[in-house]
Amino acid sequence: MESERRQFLKTVGGVTLGMVAFSGMAGLAACNAKEVTEGASAKAIPPVTPATTPPAAAQLVALPWPYKKLDPVAAAERAYTAYSNGGCMYGAFEGIVGELKAVAGEPFTTMPTAFAKYGGAGVSGWGTLCGALNGAAAAIYLVHEAKTGGPIINELYGWYGLEALPDYKPKTPKFEIATSVADSQLCHQSVTKWCDKTGFKTSSPERAERCAWLTASVVRYTVELLNKQADAGSITVVHAVPSTVKGCLVCHGKGGALENVHITNQTSCVSCHTVLPASHPK
Amino acid sequence: MESERRQFLKTVGGVTLGMVAFSGMAGLAACNAKEVTEGASAKAIPPVTPATTPPAAAQLVALPWPYKKLDPVAAAERAYTAYSNGGCMYGAFEGIVGELKAVAGEPFTTMPTAFAKYGGAGVSGWGTLCGALNGAAAAIYLVHEAKTGGPIINELYGWYGLEALPDYKPKTPKFEIATSVADSQLCHQSVTKWCDKTGFKTSSPERAERCAWLTASVVRYTVELLNKQADAGSITVVHAVPSTVKGCLVCHGKGGALENVHITNQTSCVSCHTVLPASHPK
Repeated sequence: MESERRQFLKTVGGVTLGMVAFSGMAGLAACNAKEVTEGASAKAIPPVTPATTPPAAAQLVALPWPYKKLDPVAAAERAYTAYSNGGCMYGAFEGIVGELKAVAGEPFTTMPTAFAKYGGAGVSGWGTLCGALNGAAAAIYLVHEAKTGGPIINELYGWYGLEALPDYKPKTPKFEIATSVADSQLCHQSVTKWCDKTGFKTSSPERAERCAWLTASVVRYTVELLNKQADAGSITVVHAVPSTVKGCLVCHGKGGALENVHITNQTSCVSCHTVLPASHPK
Repeated sequence: MESERRQFLKTVGGVTLGMVAFSGMAGLAACNAKEVTEGASAKAIPPVTPATTPPAAAQLVALPWPYKKLDPVAAAERAYTAYSNGGCMYGAFEGIVGELKAVAGEPFTTMPTAFAKYGGAGVSGWGTLCGALNGAAAAIYLVHEAKTGGPIINELYGWYGLEALPDYKPKTPKFEIATSVADSQLCHQSVTKWCDKTGFKTSSPERAERCAWLTASVVRYTVELLNKQADAGSITVVHAVPSTVKGCLVCHGKGGALENVHITNQTSCVSCHTVLPASHPK
């Protein structure tokens, strides 16, 4: 947060109100058209005569950005559509941030959401964190710091692990989709549980549709939580850490005799640790 | 990518070259100083007389942003320092993007890196994806699309799972740190393997220092890969998917008889699946 504040360029209305020195950022205040347009779209822009007055430099607005309440269904529908253009993490991030661009405008309009495409299939096919959860968490921390954003993530992730999902049916679905309980926040387990229950293969269009619905479901619940936080100043914890997990953390978690597990929140330990070693206390 | 392009505001030098309509984004072209400064730092800014000429609106530059080669050690040191201010994902993201802000300037200077604080401890203590890997992947996709960014992530994640880490010692370390092999990309397994090997507890300052070194190590290798890609147009795959994993994917992966695992890359299956069911083929 502090580094963001230090870099916050207080250039408003063409008037530099103040600027903290940032080593190596020479030329930042003066807009360099070549740099700004050097992205993939640069070739489409014809040369122009420079304006007499240099425009304001691109502005970094300090986080958290001011949240504006969204329609959960509109965000879910945007997420469902975006899934087809860049996968689950992009779908969730674009679902929320894209809606904020449309509803709240700046500073959300400065955020390029497409980088979130890295998170598909648990990041580039590695099967780790579900991309929808990854993208939703990223969006939550655009509008919240840890104190308020952490509890929202925790409720969202707890819900994801415990509920039968997907629970949002898009307005124009490709197929009917059955639900499953992931018992985990990992892409691998979430997908495999659904495939094992339904019989569909991972490369089937039905599995892709299931993940699109799931992305929309995650976005709808995230927006509901963000709206609740905006209205009430807090959320209701419905999906707390289960007592079974708390039991494991008595020894393995912080303050425990072993304290070798760097986890404070989890849906299940035994979903991976199906067999404990013979030496483990009963 | 297409949605980014559509929203790309071609406002350069105060001259609107062209703008594609974006539903609900009224007032986007005209800079609204109140909106731009409505972040956490807004209260620190005194009121000013508006400039005669409205400044350029905040600009969304289409991805991928143009990478400029970085000093891997400078980025690693920045990551090590940032870790202390926001954890592993922020450390990695700020390590790379912060260096790009300093070395390349815009458009990187428009990216608020602090949102990446959500990824600490495998996202808010959930022990899923290692935050250093999460932040590094996000940075990679700021400067690469999937075709080139995917292979860089795959080599980075493969390296993380197979190598004895951390392998970067900061210039002013707090402790000496022993290495361990994570055999995984998950925070939980990575930390527990190190704790079990060294005897340190997860809440110890030595464990935090280990994760700070690891964040710096991830950033150094990521920058080395990005530089190699910039120089040669490709990277060398040193840490490919192990044959043991490929063996499992013959049946469980795409095209296999079961095809119930949505994974194309992985370091190990048996690190979690330590005991196979009796019915599993030998």
